[in-house]
Amino acid sequence: MKQITLAARPNGMPDASIFRFEEVTLPAVSAGEVQLKGLYYSVDPYMRGRMNDKKSYSPPFELDKPIVGGVVAEVTTSKDERFAPGDVVLGSYLPWAEEMVVAADTIRKVDAKLVPPSYYLGVLGMPGLTAYFGLMDIGKPKAGETVVVSGAAGAVGLVAGQLAKLQGCRVVGIAGSADKITMLKEEYGFDEAVNYKTDDLSAAIEKACPDGVDVYFDNVGGEVSDAVVQHLNFFARVPLCGQIASYNDTAIQMGPRITPYLLTRSVLMQGFIVRNYVARFAEGLQYLTPLVAAGKLKYTETIVEGFDKIPEALLGLFSGKNTGKMIVKVI
Amino acid sequence: MKQITLAARPNGMPDASIFRFEEVTLPAVSAGEVQLKGLYYSVDPYMRGRMNDKKSYSPPFELDKPIVGGVVAEVTTSKDERFAPGDVVLGSYLPWAEEMVVAADTIRKVDAKLVPPSYYLGVLGMPGLTAYFGLMDIGKPKAGETVVVSGAAGAVGLVAGQLAKLQGCRVVGIAGSADKITMLKEEYGFDEAVNYKTDDLSAAIEKACPDGVDVYFDNVGGEVSDAVVQHLNFFARVPLCGQIASYNDTAIQMGPRITPYLLTRSVLMQGFIVRNYVARFAEGLQYLTPLVAAGKLKYTETIVEGFDKIPEALLGLFSGKNTGKMIVKVI
Repeated sequence: MKQITLAARPNGMPDASIFRFEEVTLPAVSAGEVQLKGLYYSVDPYMRGRMNDKKSYSPPFELDKPIVGGVVAEVTTSKDERFAPGDVVLGSYLPWAEEMVVAADTIRKVDAKLVPPSYYLGVLGMPGLTAYFGLMDIGKPKAGETVVVSGAAGAVGLVAGQLAKLQGCRVVGIAGSADKITMLKEEYGFDEAVNYKTDDLSAAIEKACPDGVDVYFDNVGGEVSDAVVQHLNFFARVPLCGQIASYNDTAIQMGPRITPYLLTRSVLMQGFIVRNYVARFAEGLQYLTPLVAAGKLKYTETIVEGFDKIPEALLGLFSGKNTGKMIVKVI
Repeated sequence: MKQITLAARPNGMPDASIFRFEEVTLPAVSAGEVQLKGLYYSVDPYMRGRMNDKKSYSPPFELDKPIVGGVVAEVTTSKDERFAPGDVVLGSYLPWAEEMVVAADTIRKVDAKLVPPSYYLGVLGMPGLTAYFGLMDIGKPKAGETVVVSGAAGAVGLVAGQLAKLQGCRVVGIAGSADKITMLKEEYGFDEAVNYKTDDLSAAIEKACPDGVDVYFDNVGGEVSDAVVQHLNFFARVPLCGQIASYNDTAIQMGPRITPYLLTRSVLMQGFIVRNYVARFAEGLQYLTPLVAAGKLKYTETIVEGFDKIPEALLGLFSGKNTGKMIVKVI
């Protein structure tokens, strides 16, 4: 069976050469372990940070070891009483391998009948929880306020924007194609959407947010954020969720200093990762699951087919090739 | 009697030409008013922002009207039962005038025997409360943590640093002269102090903070903050209190982007002004007053003598001419 290892650490924008496909033999299954066959593999922007050999919130991926991430898989052999063959399970740090033998403690069963199983890698998984805690715990949107979401057509942004609508806010999304703009407004209920590739961003934000910006849910950073920060209101909140514009930088970029804005408007900016909220994941899922099941929280995926396509799918995130969650499905 | 008005809005670093001295006659004192003779005038960095004609947390000073700020004064005539001639009072928005007639509701009596009356413009006034709420409410220092204070030898910084020491923290100050560095360490109990004008700042911060930085109380911004931000720990807190490095800018400066650091380390950054805490001023003064009275919270002032020196004293703040609070005393 095949696995994908990190062959080299990228310098700047990664390409396919940093990945290596290897043929390996599965070990035997010991007590407390299960054997899995991967069904859906998650590729996420945060993985870029783990490719660097430096201190960050996640430890670096190890060179010449399989890359690990969120995987929905089917149990094929179990030596743990909690799992039986045929169970569909989720693990957040499973190897990019067609099949794998893992400790039963690293996975949990999911309900593959309630929603498509890949949703546990998205709206009912890490991205959905990220949107929920970032928006609700840091953004604290109040009815009538204006919420701007960057990366709005991505896995986290789509959820954050809809949750803000459910709070009674005016919601403005920022995305990078005409199709995404149309989708945000017509399918996801965003009040306005701005195309950062074609619009004069600062003017467009000003027009879309006549009362200024109270919450800026930031997935991207860079020049998109420069434009939004100018329009923040007094006491605005900025959940810093992602900075995809900078993930492939080889040095810290220069940009307009933002602290004078944050100071004079008493703005709160809070970096976070979803794992900070691990003790409250159950609360988050309890909130999100019925909304998804009832169709009140919509969701979309870009599904790429074939285990061999995982590297390409990951790289595609950095040029916005995904709408909603990028998922690789085995065939 | 003389007053000082704003003759022109400065572009960049202000000079004496923006101030105008005028001879005026005092109006009569009506019911509910008092006549005051100024004793001590406060000059503060935030006043620079009020000289611009743009939205900020304080409304702009009006052209051709007296500049207003914190003044400790003596009552000379009273037509309000709460005040009698000889009372020493504080007003936060009194005009720069040798004598003035003001509504009694805009002033409050201070105890001129407990501490020098000028302290109500400093450690027991706006700067002291700024340090207290910024450090305690946003910085939330815990014993054993490392707290870095920029502008450490200024009116707010001296108090913030000492309060952090009282919480059991390792405290590192940043200031701009050898005398200030010595003073911080030998008189104010800072564990280390770094000279931003002569030291390699990032290396000096790294050496002074072997366990990283948990709280960065920022009064200055600019390149000083660039150096500190690199050393922030996971879950660090950054009360943004002042950005004096940028107050005289004519355009937003460029600098290294900080949001990637804030994101990957789950840092909280919060801009604030002391007026956000007006409902809790009594709490702050209750905390600070006994510490000052007991000598546990030390304090120093740079006192300039003569009403005519007010403009010069204000301008001196932007080149660090003050140690502790800059005050103008009438003679």
